[in-house]
Amino acid sequence: MAAAGIEVTLGSRDRARAETIAAEVVESWPERRLAIRGSDNAGAAAADVVILGTPWDSALPTVQPLRDQLAGKVVISMAAALVRVGQQLQAITLGRGSVAATLQAALPESRVTAAFHHLPAEDLSNLDEGLFADVLVCADDASAKETTMALVEAIEGLRPLDAGRLTQAQAVEAFTAVCIAVNIRYKARTYVRMGGI
Amino acid sequence: MAAAGIEVTLGSRDRARAETIAAEVVESWPERRLAIRGSDNAGAAAADVVILGTPWDSALPTVQPLRDQLAGKVVISMAAALVRVGQQLQAITLGRGSVAATLQAALPESRVTAAFHHLPAEDLSNLDEGLFADVLVCADDASAKETTMALVEAIEGLRPLDAGRLTQAQAVEAFTAVCIAVNIRYKARTYVRMGGI
Repeated sequence: MAAAGIEVTLGSRDRARAETIAAEVVESWPERRLAIRGSDNAGAAAADVVILGTPWDSALPTVQPLRDQLAGKVVISMAAALVRVGQQLQAITLGRGSVAATLQAALPESRVTAAFHHLPAEDLSNLDEGLFADVLVCADDASAKETTMALVEAIEGLRPLDAGRLTQAQAVEAFTAVCIAVNIRYKARTYVRMGGI
Repeated sequence: MAAAGIEVTLGSRDRARAETIAAEVVESWPERRLAIRGSDNAGAAAADVVILGTPWDSALPTVQPLRDQLAGKVVISMAAALVRVGQQLQAITLGRGSVAATLQAALPESRVTAAFHHLPAEDLSNLDEGLFADVLVCADDASAKETTMALVEAIEGLRPLDAGRLTQAQAVEAFTAVCIAVNIRYKARTYVRMGGI
C-alpha cells in the first residue's frame, strides 16, 4: 500500500520477523521513505487504527489478548472465511455471519469495520503499478467508517465505497471466493470496480 | 436485454398480462424487431433455456409444477434472497445456501445455472443506453454454463465471467445486497466490473 505520510507498525507474534519484513519493504522502495517498522502484536495494537491482516482463522485468537488495548479503536477486518472444497475455495458462514462480526463480538469496546477484501495482495504490494480498485467498506460506527474510508482514499488507486452496516460484511467477505474463482479460471488477478458510480 | 435473433417467451401466471407486456416491449423498440411474445408459465418453460425472473421467494413455487417440463433444460436463476432489516436489504442464507441451489434441489433433472444478479433492471431494459457490466455465471454442468455464458455474451454490453460451481452462487447472490446498499448510499445504479481481466 502506498499511503503517503502514514506511519505503519507491522505486528507479528514474532517481533524479529516483523522487523525484518518491515526493513525489507522500506529498502525496496527507498524513494518513498516509507515509515514502516516492525513490532509485536501489542506494539501494532498501539496504533490509532489497527488493520487485522491475519488469515481468517487466526483473526480471533490474535485479537483476544489485545481486547483492552483495542478498546475504543478502529479495528479493520479484511479477512474472509474461505475453505477449500474440492477444486475451489468456498465462502463459509460463521456463527456470527462474518469475520468482522466475529471480531466485533470479541471486541465489544472496539469499533470494527470491514474493508480491503477483494484486493490482490501482489498488486497491492507493488507500489509502482497502479491498482484501480474499489474497496467496499462496512461499519456500524459512523466515525470509524469515515476513518476507514479516509485510509482507503489515502492509498493510490483505491476508491472507498460505503457498503452499509457491518452486517453487509458477510456478503462482502463471501464475494472474495468469487474473485478467487475468477482468478483461478482466468489466471488473472481480479479486483472489483463498481460501474455506474 | 438486446439480444439479437433470440426468440423470447415471457411467462406469467396471468397469460394476458404477459401478452400485454410483451407487446409493449416490442412496440417500444420497433426498429429492433424483437421476437418477444407472452404466454403462461408452461409456455415459457417450453423454451430451450428458461430464465427464472421472479422475486426470490416466488422462484420455488413457480418451478415446482413445471418440474417434468424443465427436465434436461438449462434453468437460469437470477434471484437473490434479500430481506429488509431496518434501513437496509440484507442477504439471508437459505437452507441450501442459495436460490440457485434451492432450485437445483427442486429440479433434479434440470441443469440450473446462476447469472444476471447484479444488473440494474432499469438499465437492462433501456436498449438505447449501453451497460458495460460483468455477469458472474455459476454452474455445475459444463454445457449449461457454456449456454448461459453464450446468452450473456449475446446481450450488448454484458461480459460473462465463469465464477465456478453452483456453490459459489451463494456468494454471488449475497453480493446483490452490497450492490443495493451502494445504490442507496450513492443514489446510483451500480453494476459489477471485475478489473484485471
